[in-house]
Amino acid sequence: MKQRIAIDMDDVMADTYGKFADLYLQGETPRYTLDELREKSFHELLDETEFKILFKNVYAPGFFSNIAVMEGAQETIARLMERYDVFVATAAMEFPNSLREKYDWLAKHFPYIHWRNIIFLGDKSILGAEYLIDDLPRNLKTFSGQGLLFSAPHNRDETAYQRVNSWQEVGERLL
Amino acid sequence: MKQRIAIDMDDVMADTYGKFADLYLQGETPRYTLDELREKSFHELLDETEFKILFKNVYAPGFFSNIAVMEGAQETIARLMERYDVFVATAAMEFPNSLREKYDWLAKHFPYIHWRNIIFLGDKSILGAEYLIDDLPRNLKTFSGQGLLFSAPHNRDETAYQRVNSWQEVGERLL
Repeated sequence: MKQRIAIDMDDVMADTYGKFADLYLQGETPRYTLDELREKSFHELLDETEFKILFKNVYAPGFFSNIAVMEGAQETIARLMERYDVFVATAAMEFPNSLREKYDWLAKHFPYIHWRNIIFLGDKSILGAEYLIDDLPRNLKTFSGQGLLFSAPHNRDETAYQRVNSWQEVGERLL
Repeated sequence: MKQRIAIDMDDVMADTYGKFADLYLQGETPRYTLDELREKSFHELLDETEFKILFKNVYAPGFFSNIAVMEGAQETIARLMERYDVFVATAAMEFPNSLREKYDWLAKHFPYIHWRNIIFLGDKSILGAEYLIDDLPRNLKTFSGQGLLFSAPHNRDETAYQRVNSWQEVGERLL
């Protein structure tokens, strides 16, 4: 049997951080540039009110529909599928509006991933897979296999997990 | 850590078979009574055309919204949650319309199940749990833990798995 890789969507396959950055920059009084936003996390840059205003966008219908694909994800995942059983595992349950939007997003940008290999869940510790590629240390912490931390501004200081900085690095690590 | 139980929705928590039976009986020329429908599977009773007409209902918006709760499921699952980590694991990905409907159905009938413990997926072999309660032998076949086959007309002749005939029997087996 092929080894299994579970892959997170937000900030791994999809540039969700970039979507938040766009929304922030389109806001009334942005205090930072895109370059500054890409260097530090929103938690570090924004005060509590700004943070709440920005993140409530995640509950708006359509938020998950038009997020850009992370650079290199489509090519590398297609290549990973030749050697591994690849599953998409995304914590969609927290945002019920996202369920259909994420499903349609995957069908649009990753039509070669079968619905059998898509998982919407909350707690990723139930996944029985050899690898999990995720940007959130809390998901890697409870995962039983080998975790790969996909770099994002909000996990910049995390040192407990093997890190991949790009889809190119994922390919170098696993192919 | 508590042991984990993954529980299927259709024909285990939800009386999906009963919904199909209702739809059949409301059809133009039903040839069977409800009692007859409860004894044999639709595959045995219906010809190919009848079967196709009945099962295309599953793609209609709203199909999954108003299915009755299986007798005893609410009480037994609440009791299981005291001793186990209980996850709902349903193959919703095959019917994208069902995603939100299943989410809302669970919130309505099982409000004590947290969204963290809900899993919509296709291939259940990825679940890392001690138990899986499911009506489909194909899901138990690839499951790594102990499978419990929840009785339904379509699995009547299956002998390869430990069988539970009701939620009362689930309770007797696991509590």
